[in-house]
Amino acid sequence: MNAMTWLTEEEQTTWRAFLHATTLLEDHLDRQLQRDAGMPHMYYALLSTLSEAPGRKMRMTELAEQAKITRSRLSHAVSRLEGNGWVRRENCPTDRRGQVCVLTDAGHTELVRIAPGHVAAVRAAIFDRLTAEQSRRLGEISRLVAEGLHQPDGADVPWLR
Amino acid sequence: MNAMTWLTEEEQTTWRAFLHATTLLEDHLDRQLQRDAGMPHMYYALLSTLSEAPGRKMRMTELAEQAKITRSRLSHAVSRLEGNGWVRRENCPTDRRGQVCVLTDAGHTELVRIAPGHVAAVRAAIFDRLTAEQSRRLGEISRLVAEGLHQPDGADVPWLR
Repeated sequence: MNAMTWLTEEEQTTWRAFLHATTLLEDHLDRQLQRDAGMPHMYYALLSTLSEAPGRKMRMTELAEQAKITRSRLSHAVSRLEGNGWVRRENCPTDRRGQVCVLTDAGHTELVRIAPGHVAAVRAAIFDRLTAEQSRRLGEISRLVAEGLHQPDGADVPWLR
Repeated sequence: MNAMTWLTEEEQTTWRAFLHATTLLEDHLDRQLQRDAGMPHMYYALLSTLSEAPGRKMRMTELAEQAKITRSRLSHAVSRLEGNGWVRRENCPTDRRGQVCVLTDAGHTELVRIAPGHVAAVRAAIFDRLTAEQSRRLGEISRLVAEGLHQPDGADVPWLR
């Protein structure tokens, strides 16, 4: 039996190459950040997102949406980052039940320290490998796939679970 | 500070769209397979890979390389699949220290049952969203990125750790 019966030969090859690329890339960037900063790639993305938000803070619900993860996964990650002193949680001034996640000065300093190594790893793994045209196409394809998975009713997106 | 200082504006946008697409896709396919088969996406990939191997069996070391994962992660997954009766481990006839992973008849039946739903999910999330030209480009880009992460000395690939 061929488990990929309903994909064409070329689609199967593409799908497997995509899985190989994304699995290897995730492993590579996790290793790089664990080695240089003792944190997985996802934690870096949270610090980076906060650093660009106004006042370096964001509501937990927005941060989960930005990171495309569930609120429970975010909550776990934020607890770990809080343990390192890199973020802190505050009550939301406009919503009694909401919480805001703030990048601390120590978190910002840490991000400034590790960003160059991480950006260099991303560049070496992706953009240095691709022509400008291929990079542009990758953006276009990624946006199409991401948009398709933002379901119109929002029912099953991770951050609303 | 902009944590992406050394990516151009367009590269940053592409990189974020790529992370969004891959994070949402992983979540979507994991949810689909958990719902329909009680297993994460990676376990499906292992069953599917075994189903296409001669004799529906493969050495554990080769299976880890195919799946691009560490041997300890594979070992954990195989133990879980063994618990369901879908695979079994056998000693390798040609290598006293090696082990072979075999897809059982029950595992094959399960794969036949769940493959249509999974392939439909992959098709809807990716290939239905892309033109033939975009699909072709995605394959080309994925191969370039995956090849770049197969380090020449093989020192840090997951399956040799």
